[in-house]
Amino acid sequence: MKFDLEPAVVRGFRFAGVSAGLKTKPGALDLGLIAADRPASAAAVFSANRVKAAPVLVTMDRVRSGRLQAVIANSGCANSFTGEAGMRLARDSCAEVARLLGCAPALVAPSSTGVIGHLYDFAKFRNGAADAVRSLRQDGLADFAQAIMTTDTRPKTAATTFKTGGSTITLSGAVKGVGMISPKMATMLGYVVTDAAIGHAALKRSLKSALPTSFNAITVDGDMSTNDTVIIMASGAADNRAFGAREQAAFDRAVAEVSAALARELVRDGEGATKLVTVEVRGARNPADAERAARQIANSPLVKTAFFGCDPNVGRILMAAGSSGAYLESDKLVLWIGGVKVAAHGRLLTEALPAAGIAMREREFAVRLDLRLGKSTATILTCDLSYDYVRINAEYTT
Amino acid sequence: MKFDLEPAVVRGFRFAGVSAGLKTKPGALDLGLIAADRPASAAAVFSANRVKAAPVLVTMDRVRSGRLQAVIANSGCANSFTGEAGMRLARDSCAEVARLLGCAPALVAPSSTGVIGHLYDFAKFRNGAADAVRSLRQDGLADFAQAIMTTDTRPKTAATTFKTGGSTITLSGAVKGVGMISPKMATMLGYVVTDAAIGHAALKRSLKSALPTSFNAITVDGDMSTNDTVIIMASGAADNRAFGAREQAAFDRAVAEVSAALARELVRDGEGATKLVTVEVRGARNPADAERAARQIANSPLVKTAFFGCDPNVGRILMAAGSSGAYLESDKLVLWIGGVKVAAHGRLLTEALPAAGIAMREREFAVRLDLRLGKSTATILTCDLSYDYVRINAEYTT
Repeated sequence: MKFDLEPAVVRGFRFAGVSAGLKTKPGALDLGLIAADRPASAAAVFSANRVKAAPVLVTMDRVRSGRLQAVIANSGCANSFTGEAGMRLARDSCAEVARLLGCAPALVAPSSTGVIGHLYDFAKFRNGAADAVRSLRQDGLADFAQAIMTTDTRPKTAATTFKTGGSTITLSGAVKGVGMISPKMATMLGYVVTDAAIGHAALKRSLKSALPTSFNAITVDGDMSTNDTVIIMASGAADNRAFGAREQAAFDRAVAEVSAALARELVRDGEGATKLVTVEVRGARNPADAERAARQIANSPLVKTAFFGCDPNVGRILMAAGSSGAYLESDKLVLWIGGVKVAAHGRLLTEALPAAGIAMREREFAVRLDLRLGKSTATILTCDLSYDYVRINAEYTT
Repeated sequence: MKFDLEPAVVRGFRFAGVSAGLKTKPGALDLGLIAADRPASAAAVFSANRVKAAPVLVTMDRVRSGRLQAVIANSGCANSFTGEAGMRLARDSCAEVARLLGCAPALVAPSSTGVIGHLYDFAKFRNGAADAVRSLRQDGLADFAQAIMTTDTRPKTAATTFKTGGSTITLSGAVKGVGMISPKMATMLGYVVTDAAIGHAALKRSLKSALPTSFNAITVDGDMSTNDTVIIMASGAADNRAFGAREQAAFDRAVAEVSAALARELVRDGEGATKLVTVEVRGARNPADAERAARQIANSPLVKTAFFGCDPNVGRILMAAGSSGAYLESDKLVLWIGGVKVAAHGRLLTEALPAAGIAMREREFAVRLDLRLGKSTATILTCDLSYDYVRINAEYTT
């Protein structure tokens, strides 16, 4: 299966990204719209944070029907921790978009990202929404990807296609931010659209099965936003026959591929990140242990600063694994950094460290820890912790 | 009860700190010795990290007897992840000190802090140990505190006294590092000595009861070292009558006070720290929820960079609490930063933010989150995340 980081045209959908003046920077795109030609199958997953933003609550409620026709997403304001006024604003915004598109308000899902604790200006929103509807284009996904950016340094999109029973199915998506990476900004937002004809229950299973190897397998700072949302919509414009088991599997793989590509782009664009590091733990006694050890390594500030410094710091990696709660035995484990074996038989392979340090100068490398106790594995993508992370998150004060 | 950050003379103990050449910097103190005039009651607590350094394993074994006469602690090398050779080195080092002091080797406990994965030079150690024994003095605790430093910017000591039934009991202690704060250095090491006459079982209970409000209530980077050790020794030189319930309670308070003072000094001297922040969560449904929320706030890189930037970032604090797994309701909670109420009734108190930002310019302030759901509380001391944290941990590469 091929995938591409360019956005694709997906039959049955049009996209827009416009400037509504919700961001302080004049002219910056800050309002994105995805509109299906008719009601589409839809599924979504959300932040597990106990503090949930108004648009998250509204979208959670609306996607239960399994159908959506539009997503209206703004940057510049998270509409989170805004009480009943925030709920009203989210619903009014959807109603306005529904009016402009001529569809039912319950088929419009809102997303917001930006400063927590504030409302956006509804008059500005209304003008922007009208502009967005006028600007809808089949090839507008790049503009949409731009409009949802906050401290992202570039728009992030991906696409893939596959053939099944004479039909070509296309999937394309856009994503922004990762976790709670931004100064007073919240949110990872992800959108995948496809022209497949598929029911919402199957669509939801497909999205959920993609999570462990995509959006749930990444970390920038271990923090979880109040606004995280991933929505998938299927227009059915491909007019494919109903999926059998084999076609469904191919579709699941395609969703997983696009999601993984988007998730990877998120980490690569993590705040202040200079390196993309794959942390792989294998040989754990059970999946929970593998996951715990991989996450602890991937989130440790000491490990992440060592990545930034190209320091093959075996001690910090083993410290993180050892403190994760995962069962391990010092004498059994083997550790590789950038493909170089740096620890085995309960001791540091000192002579290998210079080579590991050189491997760490690459923009992408892997840390692999084999606990040699069982068969469970876990992989987490992370980035380094740099001066720029501190600068971005400390310098811009309220 | 008064306490002091200066070390005190504690009858029955002598201390030394010498340069053995184990650190790369010539002349730096790197070998500390605590020696009791005769076998003392002793208790200790250790790192829960699955990767435990050789000196930790040896000390764990020896303190089971409830008696120790000496502690030999070196900086410059952690003797961690060093296999059987490391175990031999730790035991041989104790045997040498025992020979010089004329006591049983099983009464000597070793501690090490520094680079993981390496052994120290035994010939240098032997010369240093002889020098340390010659240098033992009743007022030598300040030297000892200096000798165990790694990236600590200053030696850290504390002392307190109390009177009971005609006797004056003195406690004094020293501490270094915190968590896994140092570049390839591991370790929080803490030592408390007292002249109280008290059995080792009561001593252990006393130390354990002090932990939740001292060494277990702090964080610098959320990482747990492979070498963490806190040892308490009681010489009995105060010749007090056996403690009754009231005297025991006074002793417990004194241990808790000295431990809390030392723990506080650790955070204040955290790597790159410019601020000491008390995170207090109250009104939680149960103690586990209070603890989870307080720890998540205290360890969040986004919250800690906001502390550094004096940014009253309510969104990040609520995000951290909400993602901790603790049950909370946005509409109920109240949040104060530096004594200024910044969130209540499900919304941000925007007008209060400037005052909160000013309060954050202090070197010490508190974040208090009242969940208003129950009666449980938790308090964690933390520090900010600054450029210097990244510099210290990234720039010095192997």
